[in-house]
Amino acid sequence: MTPAAQLAQFAQTATPPEASLQIMQLSLADWVTVGRAGRSEPVAKIIRQMVLAEGGQGRASLFGDPTPQPPRAAALANGTISHALDYDDTHFAHIGHPSVAVLPAALAVAETENASGADFLTAALIGVEASIRVGLWLGRSHYQVGFHQTATAGAFGATLAAAKLMNLTEEQIETALNLVATRSSGLKSQFGAMGKPYNAGIAASNGVECAQLARLGMTAAADGMASGQGFGPTHHGTLETAPFAADGIWHFDRISHKFHACCHGTHAALEALSQIAPQITGEIQKIEITTHPRWLSVCDIKSPRSGLEVKFSYAHTAAMALSGVSTAALESFSDEVATDPALQALAKRVTVTSDAEMAETAATVLVTTASDRVEVSYDLAHPISLTALSDKLAKKSAALLGEPQAKALWHMIEKGSDPSQIGAVLRGV
Amino acid sequence: MTPAAQLAQFAQTATPPEASLQIMQLSLADWVTVGRAGRSEPVAKIIRQMVLAEGGQGRASLFGDPTPQPPRAAALANGTISHALDYDDTHFAHIGHPSVAVLPAALAVAETENASGADFLTAALIGVEASIRVGLWLGRSHYQVGFHQTATAGAFGATLAAAKLMNLTEEQIETALNLVATRSSGLKSQFGAMGKPYNAGIAASNGVECAQLARLGMTAAADGMASGQGFGPTHHGTLETAPFAADGIWHFDRISHKFHACCHGTHAALEALSQIAPQITGEIQKIEITTHPRWLSVCDIKSPRSGLEVKFSYAHTAAMALSGVSTAALESFSDEVATDPALQALAKRVTVTSDAEMAETAATVLVTTASDRVEVSYDLAHPISLTALSDKLAKKSAALLGEPQAKALWHMIEKGSDPSQIGAVLRGV
Repeated sequence: MTPAAQLAQFAQTATPPEASLQIMQLSLADWVTVGRAGRSEPVAKIIRQMVLAEGGQGRASLFGDPTPQPPRAAALANGTISHALDYDDTHFAHIGHPSVAVLPAALAVAETENASGADFLTAALIGVEASIRVGLWLGRSHYQVGFHQTATAGAFGATLAAAKLMNLTEEQIETALNLVATRSSGLKSQFGAMGKPYNAGIAASNGVECAQLARLGMTAAADGMASGQGFGPTHHGTLETAPFAADGIWHFDRISHKFHACCHGTHAALEALSQIAPQITGEIQKIEITTHPRWLSVCDIKSPRSGLEVKFSYAHTAAMALSGVSTAALESFSDEVATDPALQALAKRVTVTSDAEMAETAATVLVTTASDRVEVSYDLAHPISLTALSDKLAKKSAALLGEPQAKALWHMIEKGSDPSQIGAVLRGV
Repeated sequence: MTPAAQLAQFAQTATPPEASLQIMQLSLADWVTVGRAGRSEPVAKIIRQMVLAEGGQGRASLFGDPTPQPPRAAALANGTISHALDYDDTHFAHIGHPSVAVLPAALAVAETENASGADFLTAALIGVEASIRVGLWLGRSHYQVGFHQTATAGAFGATLAAAKLMNLTEEQIETALNLVATRSSGLKSQFGAMGKPYNAGIAASNGVECAQLARLGMTAAADGMASGQGFGPTHHGTLETAPFAADGIWHFDRISHKFHACCHGTHAALEALSQIAPQITGEIQKIEITTHPRWLSVCDIKSPRSGLEVKFSYAHTAAMALSGVSTAALESFSDEVATDPALQALAKRVTVTSDAEMAETAATVLVTTASDRVEVSYDLAHPISLTALSDKLAKKSAALLGEPQAKALWHMIEKGSDPSQIGAVLRGV
């Protein structure tokens, strides 16, 4: 069986476990949160303006505009907008951002087809799982040479989610995947430019387009993915394994979420500090952070002068965490926070040392007061419970959207992830 | 200077010679002809249906439907529709079909921006020239590994044509090209499926999209084409030369057009026969065709049983050419023509022999009657005069569209290639 045929079978037969669906639900809430929070970024305005100028008719919602859209346009815009802040979830098995590629396609088609919340969530989960598996199949060689797995592997996942929500036959799904093989694209060289979030929109839009064309009867290569001149071989795929058959494993379960609107290198220390903060009484004398040496050249600015520099400062973010300033909120990374005298004074008491024996994902923090010493180690790679994850994501949502809107969103998603209700949240301006 | 910067400069400063513009005019007439002739093909109906369902508003015309469209949608549909018959022009320097990738983008934007015929033609020529140069830069390695230059190189040319017609600044054009580097895609493994014509639509649509986004301010990688993880290096580009600077050469001048709706291997013999036919009087006794041996396994079906088999028959197509049955018309390749007793009788007098010393693009035909022997050799690679080319393309147009419509189209294009008038021809149902 070709990869496309296996994935089509997977889409039609897999029955996701409840736990995976719950994590998908959390990722959905997180995706809506970062999309809403990013809706006024410059790239968000640009892609929305392009799509709105086309004046298309449809039922799919856009982040930040009330005008309903055809699904292909909504997918392009929402993929781009939700990746604008680079604050969405990541899967490290293949290094990609599954939600921003797949959820825009799934939601746009779910709204268009009037799908139920349960069908929407299942299709989304199957889509993200497929994108991770295609990513694993394409492998490190594909990523290292320069392809952006979010876009390339993401397009296959977006196709699968869209095709499932359109109720395509197994054969049509197979065709849609073999067709998107000639449409999928996206390069890492766009990192640092708006081309990066655009890549997520490209993936989502390609998925919707190819599912629509397969439904209308377009034909594709018999094996567009793995044949000699198929997507994998032409795009430097490793292709060592073909992990496409349903095997009871849900790679998606190991998805990582971002909880701080600053450099990833500071996150382990900030997690440790969030555990230390409630235990501290009295004046802080010393804050000692130990981290992997690779981060010292990345995020150890001692005296940041701007909000942007704060994002790359162990000292200042630690001072914020111990002073009750949210590191999840975008507006915390302002020039005012950078030059706040109290924070600056506390930041001066931070020392950062490195330990090459530590994992890159780990940090140890020791806080000393006149009466006490509290030390906590944290490794981002360590799994956390669903309850803890939900709690942290809800706090992030509140920090980004405000408490009332976050609560309403979380309630809605827990109630059944109804696509039309979620669409209404996207559209709100 | 990066390739994108050089191409942007080329777009802003190149002044095409009159002769190249005249060839572009002929290719434009040919493109409209094959698009019109292919408008009812299954893939044409599918892509049009998808685009029409989006209900977009705009001023760009679709092949075969009166509803005006946004330019991105029209480019996607018209690129696909005009390549449906695989009867459009080819450039052998990089092996691509420049017109079906670039002209749909150029026309859609020209109609949208209300451009003059002269500006439209110039932008189209600069776009196809750029696509050929990008194709030469990507080189044989890119093509051999499996990329469809029509789509990949074509997207860059489509971007340039669209950007020029939008009156973008040189810097914006550069950005548009660096952006399409993450959007461009297309694989040869789709040959034999509808994915092949779709590739042309992909190129055209990507070009319009990236030009629009650059105009709105989207940013892209500084060197999306040639940097380490840029399009060229990641897509197996040869990149031996960087032929982007204006050098007075117009590679487009060597464009090849198809004049017969059958296998390319039969074309040289059919050209020879078209010169022989007017000289023949009396009953034909023998038709001796000499060709390169590679074609014997491709198009030497002795007794074709169907219209499709006729396309791969030296004997039957030669009989048609000597009997006044147009080999340019699609409907000539019918089952009735295949089983016509007079044609079958004449086809029996054809012998085909091979000569490994001959060029693959050449054939010699010797026709013997009771009173005469006429021999003509023809090489497709041999350049022909603009007048002869125009004459042959006008005949093709008449064979595909009927004499009155072809005449009107040619007249309109010679009068100034006005985009809105050409659009009206596309829309006619």
